[in-house]
Amino acid sequence: MSPWPPETGSLDFTTLRALYQSGSLTPGEVLRAVLGRIARQGEDKVWICRLPEAEVLGRADALDALAPRGGRRALSELPLFGLPFAVKDNIDVAGLPTTAGCPAYAYTPERTAPAVERLLAAGAVLVGKTNLDQFATGLVGVRSPYGVARNPFDPRYVPGGSSSGSGVAVSAGLVSFALGTDTAGSGRVPAGFMNIVGLKPTRGLVSTRGVVPACRSLDCVSVFALTAPDALRALELMAGEDPEDPYSRPVPSGTFAMTPPRGLRVGVPGRGQREFFGDREAERLFGEGIERLERLGHPVREVDFLPFREAAGLLYGGPWMAERLAAVGEFMDKNPEALHPVTRRLIEGGRRYSAVDAFRAMYRLEGLRKAAAALWREMDALAVPTTGTAYTVAEVEKDPIGPNNNLGHYTNFVNLLDLSAVAVPNRMDSRGLPAGITFVAPALREGLLCALGDTFHRAGGLPLGASANALPDAR
Amino acid sequence: MSPWPPETGSLDFTTLRALYQSGSLTPGEVLRAVLGRIARQGEDKVWICRLPEAEVLGRADALDALAPRGGRRALSELPLFGLPFAVKDNIDVAGLPTTAGCPAYAYTPERTAPAVERLLAAGAVLVGKTNLDQFATGLVGVRSPYGVARNPFDPRYVPGGSSSGSGVAVSAGLVSFALGTDTAGSGRVPAGFMNIVGLKPTRGLVSTRGVVPACRSLDCVSVFALTAPDALRALELMAGEDPEDPYSRPVPSGTFAMTPPRGLRVGVPGRGQREFFGDREAERLFGEGIERLERLGHPVREVDFLPFREAAGLLYGGPWMAERLAAVGEFMDKNPEALHPVTRRLIEGGRRYSAVDAFRAMYRLEGLRKAAAALWREMDALAVPTTGTAYTVAEVEKDPIGPNNNLGHYTNFVNLLDLSAVAVPNRMDSRGLPAGITFVAPALREGLLCALGDTFHRAGGLPLGASANALPDAR
Repeated sequence: MSPWPPETGSLDFTTLRALYQSGSLTPGEVLRAVLGRIARQGEDKVWICRLPEAEVLGRADALDALAPRGGRRALSELPLFGLPFAVKDNIDVAGLPTTAGCPAYAYTPERTAPAVERLLAAGAVLVGKTNLDQFATGLVGVRSPYGVARNPFDPRYVPGGSSSGSGVAVSAGLVSFALGTDTAGSGRVPAGFMNIVGLKPTRGLVSTRGVVPACRSLDCVSVFALTAPDALRALELMAGEDPEDPYSRPVPSGTFAMTPPRGLRVGVPGRGQREFFGDREAERLFGEGIERLERLGHPVREVDFLPFREAAGLLYGGPWMAERLAAVGEFMDKNPEALHPVTRRLIEGGRRYSAVDAFRAMYRLEGLRKAAAALWREMDALAVPTTGTAYTVAEVEKDPIGPNNNLGHYTNFVNLLDLSAVAVPNRMDSRGLPAGITFVAPALREGLLCALGDTFHRAGGLPLGASANALPDAR
Repeated sequence: MSPWPPETGSLDFTTLRALYQSGSLTPGEVLRAVLGRIARQGEDKVWICRLPEAEVLGRADALDALAPRGGRRALSELPLFGLPFAVKDNIDVAGLPTTAGCPAYAYTPERTAPAVERLLAAGAVLVGKTNLDQFATGLVGVRSPYGVARNPFDPRYVPGGSSSGSGVAVSAGLVSFALGTDTAGSGRVPAGFMNIVGLKPTRGLVSTRGVVPACRSLDCVSVFALTAPDALRALELMAGEDPEDPYSRPVPSGTFAMTPPRGLRVGVPGRGQREFFGDREAERLFGEGIERLERLGHPVREVDFLPFREAAGLLYGGPWMAERLAAVGEFMDKNPEALHPVTRRLIEGGRRYSAVDAFRAMYRLEGLRKAAAALWREMDALAVPTTGTAYTVAEVEKDPIGPNNNLGHYTNFVNLLDLSAVAVPNRMDSRGLPAGITFVAPALREGLLCALGDTFHRAGGLPLGASANALPDAR
């Protein structure tokens, strides 16, 4: 096994576990390397809060003690042994402030969210809490008083949001994985822009207790990782019914089985229904993705994207905005100046909807769900560009709404229609920016999606995240 | 086989099929008897519209021709061969006006609702369309410009609503079965007051296409019949996924299997949680029902009724009222005088709810669903009084709201929590009024509920409906 350079060695699960198992590396060494990398990043605006170094290293050293070099028992008992991770700052960690990207809103919870609790219990090492679009409202990553998390591919471009810090942390090699949340696409858009994997599980699979609500009926905790199997593994460990979370649901056995996908029927939006907002290269790269799917033996067919498109339109153009108001309206009324002006304007929009509007939109959504159900009988997965194009920070500052809406074109429908999704790298464009692809399936198909996503990712031959590291061999 | 008296012979499925099968009776003879009974009822306010007699008899004679005396083939091919039935007048039958209890709202549909279509295709003979609380809003049966359907047990008492005419038609021996609808309890309260069976199926099991919406996300087509197996049979024939109804759902196999129930765990509200609005006799009769359940070998235990009670409170005291406004608000705005004043006042109440209110109520409901789910792990069915007490027409006219709300005490939670239910006769009180019991279970337990309901009904020894006929032998 080749040596693991502290500055650039990959933090993917397979690589670290193999090195831990062989005794070539310890959690203490990895976490020291991680802290060094974070320090070298400088003012990258990735973090809202980091754990004190002593605490991080204390935890790592405790793991070292549990499993002295080559000691395998702790490794088998702790499936995330010594893996550094980050948590989006709208998820509670006991003793650390939860800001949701709004300093005046901050509170310090006494209980850690069960999702995080389960990761810690599995041996993962928390490094800190990450930047986000305020109240997880946005897909750009610039609506934050904590600055714009620096895009490692090109700092002029937005990192994607709302889980901007978590996406960058994984891509830049600062953690093995990171938690995001995903209501409209916040767990996928940053993955697309960061050349990493973003797994948006089925609603209710992971408890959202201890998560600041965006749209409470739709919110999901999501995972960013360097590979699809890594994301799936973290998800599997977080998932579980929570009697205290009304939206949580039981996890059927087999949900996380990564059966090698053969001959999956993959749907794609019809040519006339694809939207790249004028980005011809993005269009071509998506076409190359389709060809790769076909080469991998998956028959691709065009399906009617309209029901998905119309459902997407309901999320920001309909009464679901009132869910955001239900979540933070009282705070906003008392502290109007505390909000990012764009966020405030958007959330205020929730006031214009009546209960009649809400029910009417739900009827429409129910109809679209039915229409989509018919499409799902013809395909195992739907492949869409993760985003139609990329935007610069300057473009988003000039027009805070339009580009943001465009970024949700292929993501907004997923939670409304109770689907699961994984965003994986597709190609790099001529500017050196990643172009992602997202596979979508009905609820509880996480295993199938990650298996498909992983073969697709491997066949692409790109390095991991913003690093030069190659994908590890398949486990 | 004893002769079947045209004035009083039972119209239950078992009796009629046996007589048809033996050749002792023909559909023509039965429908002529039915028309005679309807005529003898006089101004009973059961019907809003009846089919012309010639049409009814023409259909019956056509069935006669299909299956001359003793001809069994048509009988086996047509499971509802020659069974007279009625349809609540908020369900479309092509060519007949649908009034929903509001003459100014009436329209004449070109298509028959699929639920009715399936019954006709199974050989049932439609007699007419029945009276109801306007727009199916109410549980009393007096909010109708077509009068109060006459309670055959005591005309001073309300027949129950909103499916008042359908309940009376079955009880008075005018039809073998009748369709109602059930949002808050409209398919169960009239069954309780009419000493018959009211089967409220799982939401989405029967298409609600062609039904005037009350709360579209909750509405169900329901069945009134003299026995639980009859109701289940009609339901089985109506059920089926409808691609044009967004709320329709697939019917799992086994849903209608009436396995003889043994040792079911039956929950009942704790003693301190039972509410009879001062009606001591009703309380005692419910207690006798519990004893009967125990004698039948079903262990009865008290469960916490609070989650059900709180869910019930959401229906009329929360944003779901806005669904009724979504359904008929535009009509009401243009024709305020066309509405029953009580109905108008109630529906107007839907205006006060915002989308934020709607979402907040849904969060609460989701929490109650979760709490109820825990209770369902401890019981197979919940037994409740169908209503806590009975009211006179005079009492309801004096206070149009209070008694109506009380009648929903044990019914309002069922559709919100996605449950199935069957109301069956329990005892007669000292005034000669029926006191019903309702068995409730999770979604898609219709077979189990009807099996339980039937054994309970048989053990009670009451005559069928308002007749002197005994229950037929079990099939």
